[in-house]
Amino acid sequence: MADFKYEIKETIGTISESPKGWTKELNLVSWNGKAPKFDLRDWAPEHEKMGKGITLNTDELKALKDLLNQMEL
Amino acid sequence: MADFKYEIKETIGTISESPKGWTKELNLVSWNGKAPKFDLRDWAPEHEKMGKGITLNTDELKALKDLLNQMEL
Repeated sequence: MADFKYEIKETIGTISESPKGWTKELNLVSWNGKAPKFDLRDWAPEHEKMGKGITLNTDELKALKDLLNQMEL
Repeated sequence: MADFKYEIKETIGTISESPKGWTKELNLVSWNGKAPKFDLRDWAPEHEKMGKGITLNTDELKALKDLLNQMEL
């Protein structure tokens, strides 16, 4: 994996946990010292490894919230 | 990229669009003919290329909705 730094600035919440202890989490993460972004991602226990994920800005998170509230879940 | 098939079964909504026309979308996607999962991902115009993303099941989407509704956005 490329050389980069990240720092979890705020743990917002966990939305699932796998049998092996990986968690899917929404966090505020700073990449390479930049301003933190919202980040929805799978993490190994203790955040030692990161899995696939997606970063979102505040507007995208708002739009996602509106979308989810329109769905029958 | 590895050889795999996918089919967008349902377009649920778009949460943002970049200046180059890439969109961040929530869809129901079937991977390799399996049962469709929710999928939050960046797509090139016309869905010709896919970017980074994350798949979610219904329980995870519900948990995410609850989390977003607790936040001040």
